[in-house]
Amino acid sequence: MVDGKLERVTRGPLPGSRKIYVSGTLHPELRVPMREIRQTPTRQADLKGARTIPNPPVVVYDTSGPYTDQEAVIDLGRGLAPIRAGWIATRKDSEPLPGPGSARRRPLRAKQGLAVTQMRYAREGIVTPEMEFVAVRESQRAEEIASQHPGHSHGAAIPRKITPEFVRGEVARGRAIIPANVNHPESEPMIIGRNFLVKINANLGNSSLSSSIEEEVEKMVWAIRWGADTVMDLSTGREIHQTREAILRNCPVPVGTVPIYQALEKVGGRAEELTWELYRDTLIEQAEQGVDYFTIHAGVLLRFIPLTAKRLTGIVSRGGSILAKWCLAHHRENFLYTRFEEICEIMRAHDVAFSLGDGLRPGSIADANDEAQFAELEVLGELTRTAWKHDVQVMIEGPGHVPMQLVQENVTRQLAACQEAPFYTLGPLTTDIAPGHDHLTSAIGAAMIGWFGTALLCYVTPKEHLGLPDRDDVKEAVIAYKIAAHAADLAKGHPGAQARDDALSRARYEFRWEDQFNLGLDPERARAFHDETLPQEGAKLAHFCSMCGPQFCAMKLTEEVRERSSVEGPASSATRQG
Amino acid sequence: MVDGKLERVTRGPLPGSRKIYVSGTLHPELRVPMREIRQTPTRQADLKGARTIPNPPVVVYDTSGPYTDQEAVIDLGRGLAPIRAGWIATRKDSEPLPGPGSARRRPLRAKQGLAVTQMRYAREGIVTPEMEFVAVRESQRAEEIASQHPGHSHGAAIPRKITPEFVRGEVARGRAIIPANVNHPESEPMIIGRNFLVKINANLGNSSLSSSIEEEVEKMVWAIRWGADTVMDLSTGREIHQTREAILRNCPVPVGTVPIYQALEKVGGRAEELTWELYRDTLIEQAEQGVDYFTIHAGVLLRFIPLTAKRLTGIVSRGGSILAKWCLAHHRENFLYTRFEEICEIMRAHDVAFSLGDGLRPGSIADANDEAQFAELEVLGELTRTAWKHDVQVMIEGPGHVPMQLVQENVTRQLAACQEAPFYTLGPLTTDIAPGHDHLTSAIGAAMIGWFGTALLCYVTPKEHLGLPDRDDVKEAVIAYKIAAHAADLAKGHPGAQARDDALSRARYEFRWEDQFNLGLDPERARAFHDETLPQEGAKLAHFCSMCGPQFCAMKLTEEVRERSSVEGPASSATRQG
Repeated sequence: MVDGKLERVTRGPLPGSRKIYVSGTLHPELRVPMREIRQTPTRQADLKGARTIPNPPVVVYDTSGPYTDQEAVIDLGRGLAPIRAGWIATRKDSEPLPGPGSARRRPLRAKQGLAVTQMRYAREGIVTPEMEFVAVRESQRAEEIASQHPGHSHGAAIPRKITPEFVRGEVARGRAIIPANVNHPESEPMIIGRNFLVKINANLGNSSLSSSIEEEVEKMVWAIRWGADTVMDLSTGREIHQTREAILRNCPVPVGTVPIYQALEKVGGRAEELTWELYRDTLIEQAEQGVDYFTIHAGVLLRFIPLTAKRLTGIVSRGGSILAKWCLAHHRENFLYTRFEEICEIMRAHDVAFSLGDGLRPGSIADANDEAQFAELEVLGELTRTAWKHDVQVMIEGPGHVPMQLVQENVTRQLAACQEAPFYTLGPLTTDIAPGHDHLTSAIGAAMIGWFGTALLCYVTPKEHLGLPDRDDVKEAVIAYKIAAHAADLAKGHPGAQARDDALSRARYEFRWEDQFNLGLDPERARAFHDETLPQEGAKLAHFCSMCGPQFCAMKLTEEVRERSSVEGPASSATRQG
Repeated sequence: MVDGKLERVTRGPLPGSRKIYVSGTLHPELRVPMREIRQTPTRQADLKGARTIPNPPVVVYDTSGPYTDQEAVIDLGRGLAPIRAGWIATRKDSEPLPGPGSARRRPLRAKQGLAVTQMRYAREGIVTPEMEFVAVRESQRAEEIASQHPGHSHGAAIPRKITPEFVRGEVARGRAIIPANVNHPESEPMIIGRNFLVKINANLGNSSLSSSIEEEVEKMVWAIRWGADTVMDLSTGREIHQTREAILRNCPVPVGTVPIYQALEKVGGRAEELTWELYRDTLIEQAEQGVDYFTIHAGVLLRFIPLTAKRLTGIVSRGGSILAKWCLAHHRENFLYTRFEEICEIMRAHDVAFSLGDGLRPGSIADANDEAQFAELEVLGELTRTAWKHDVQVMIEGPGHVPMQLVQENVTRQLAACQEAPFYTLGPLTTDIAPGHDHLTSAIGAAMIGWFGTALLCYVTPKEHLGLPDRDDVKEAVIAYKIAAHAADLAKGHPGAQARDDALSRARYEFRWEDQFNLGLDPERARAFHDETLPQEGAKLAHFCSMCGPQFCAMKLTEEVRERSSVEGPASSATRQG
């Protein structure tokens, strides 16, 4: 299932970058990955001639896993090293299932009656290696924080420095989650919460019409290379189990799924034939494989379905429509709702986090913020409290399609209804009129909703509504969402967030072209665009680009202004001459 | 200069569309262009069998000029028909210059002492054909306005219906402008103001390093095809005059320039050699050619220059840095400021509008909203009042690079300082970390600033900071900004703005694929993306796409839910089953 064909995944560091690892204090054995971007020196001419001043490397958050580590040995057939296996074993609260499992390792499950969730440990006051890992990862720029614009965080409580204890506290109160299934020891811990960096999710997965397992693994590696913090495997075609296994074993970021898709495959696509038992077995199968979070549409209640009848676009969530169909067929309440506590038992035994699905999210601008949507949200709040009672981690899914003036209400209501459980939104798209460009219609909404307090932004690709994304679409969407997430971090005033902007702008101002390319989110495109008109290597040292040419370059002119200004002195220049 | 080579401009209507013209009431001879997008019928299956229900065509704002009119005869060597010539002549307040002019037509100038500006007419209570043209153009959907979300307009005063008298009032008080040089009779009048649809500008122009006249004309036609409401010719290379002439004679939208660029060419690029006389002659040359608005950096005062010394990226406006260099070289006040009333005389004699340049706009996130920027803004307010005294139309340029939390302050201050003169911003970019994707980093800021009250959004292409945009970059940027402008219209609650979203979403919901493509901003890309996985013509009728496949299509499932729901009746479905 996973073999040599996979050798075509993209390997090696990004241009100008190398992987570094930082160790922990409470847990010195931690190797927290980061990307270090080297910079070229600044060349300055002054009266004593030319001299060079070195510029320090810039360290950035790194989601790409061992694939960008030149030292790492990777065998896609065997999967990544299980870096968390030792930590999990040390806790002695889980045990392998008896008998031969379907996976290479025998799946772990909590010992009878125990919860193996990060939330439980946090509530017991334990700072796990996962928590310290996250703290180091989030505060990598803490020492080098220069002054930056004050943010407006809309009530978030972002500390000056992320400590392991702060992480523990946030997880304990449910305001952040660390998706970390005990059966996905390959994952590098990360955190989702409004007091941390805004994260992004990339959806992968084939449909019955296209794509192969190999392609999906390759897309996963590609998505994390450009910055996806989590991925969801939304496969619906044949070989769902095998595709997921290949992704999980090779994936250093948390993996989410929508288990109802596989359940539906098992009943030949006939929603009305779904049963609790079949669904439950699917949850267990996936929990044992290592899925880190499940989208579960437990808030689609029978009584809400008629509320969607007057909508322009009805129910557009796949899971939501499957469950609505089941409810109507049986004229019974959604079994995900009625069996919710039993689901919690499965989640806590593997540390799978809930991603409570918004099955009734709006599918068009017209349907935004309507009664059906907010009725479901209240139920998700109720379910959050139930899950927390079982020490299960929870995040809440949100829309969708929302015009700008209605975006903030989504966050305000979600924070209130779900007591600050992390919000995870799809976009939202801020207009419906641009099929083919919905990464952009939605990046606008994503940046805003991230600023208002959303913790995880699910990307939308340019192919949304039209077809399945390919490799190029995945990259385009990941970068669009990295932009949105980072713009949100800046606006919230996340400590140190502006450092990369400042480094890049300084490089731009000093005509350090290589640095300008490498410090950006997409070094390859930046270089290619520059080289279209000025391909010569010498142009990388030129104090202009083709946009204005040498004579009209404002940066170049300003250099001259500044030189003259400093010679004459500010006091003299400040005199008004009329 | 303009010959057969230009035949490669893109002609013909957009897919599924045709040009229509609407006449006026006060001025029945007006032919206001609009684009009508036809829709396919809805197919419905019910107990009596299948039936089709026709869907009305959707009418949208159309900037593309005669190029998309299949009936129009276009000769690029001769230029477009001077549709405004008769209106201008009827006013009898301008006269041709004596002697042979440089253009085919002898340039017009106001008769001695008169102002030929739309602002003057408006203040005298005259509703010009231009004003009624604009009113018809802006309110094309007035009759078909369905219910839509209430907007939040941040203090704008958008009426339910745009009447000619409302247009007059807005122009009279300076809250909107109709850029309409008497020497650019080819242009189809449009309006820029916060109580009208948000508009976008596309920058064109070659530098000394690349591009030809033919390419620039072709790019202009291409830009308006996709929705540019105005264009700026920022050429700095050889043949500035000829390039501008070719663009103006073939351009149905207002054209702006930055005259200091040409003035600088005339002195071989040596800023310190610029003189008022040379600059004045350049203004007159361009006014006589027909340029509709001039960017004039009259607010870059000598005393502000030292304020930029502590910035991360100094002065990044080309015009701003040229003037700063001149001021420092001569240690004298900016001559655009000291000669401002003389400039007003030229503007009023041709109806060239001011676009008061923000020469000190921030060039990086770090420099946003600083002292230099806001000091200049106050001066722009002072200059606005001076221009208005001369009946000259004014808009105000704004940044640039601004993190989200600081965007609104730009609008609030601008509205106050400049008494609601229209705001015209470049982006702003909301982060500096994505060279190669700055159409997107800036579309986020543009959507927000448009919502807050900016009237005209200057696009930023993906090549920004890296090179000169080509045809693909122009289209990408125009579409990104149409999205931003439309998202802003929706958020402001512009009457009828949601109609196109609703039509597209309805088409999507009913699987009318052709309509979904054609109603969008980019029919070609939408179709191409869809066809990548489902190229067969039959797939255009399928009730699913490759994204989910037939079995998992939420839209398809919802159809079934709705059918079942309507059979059982809402009361019955609403019963909770527990």
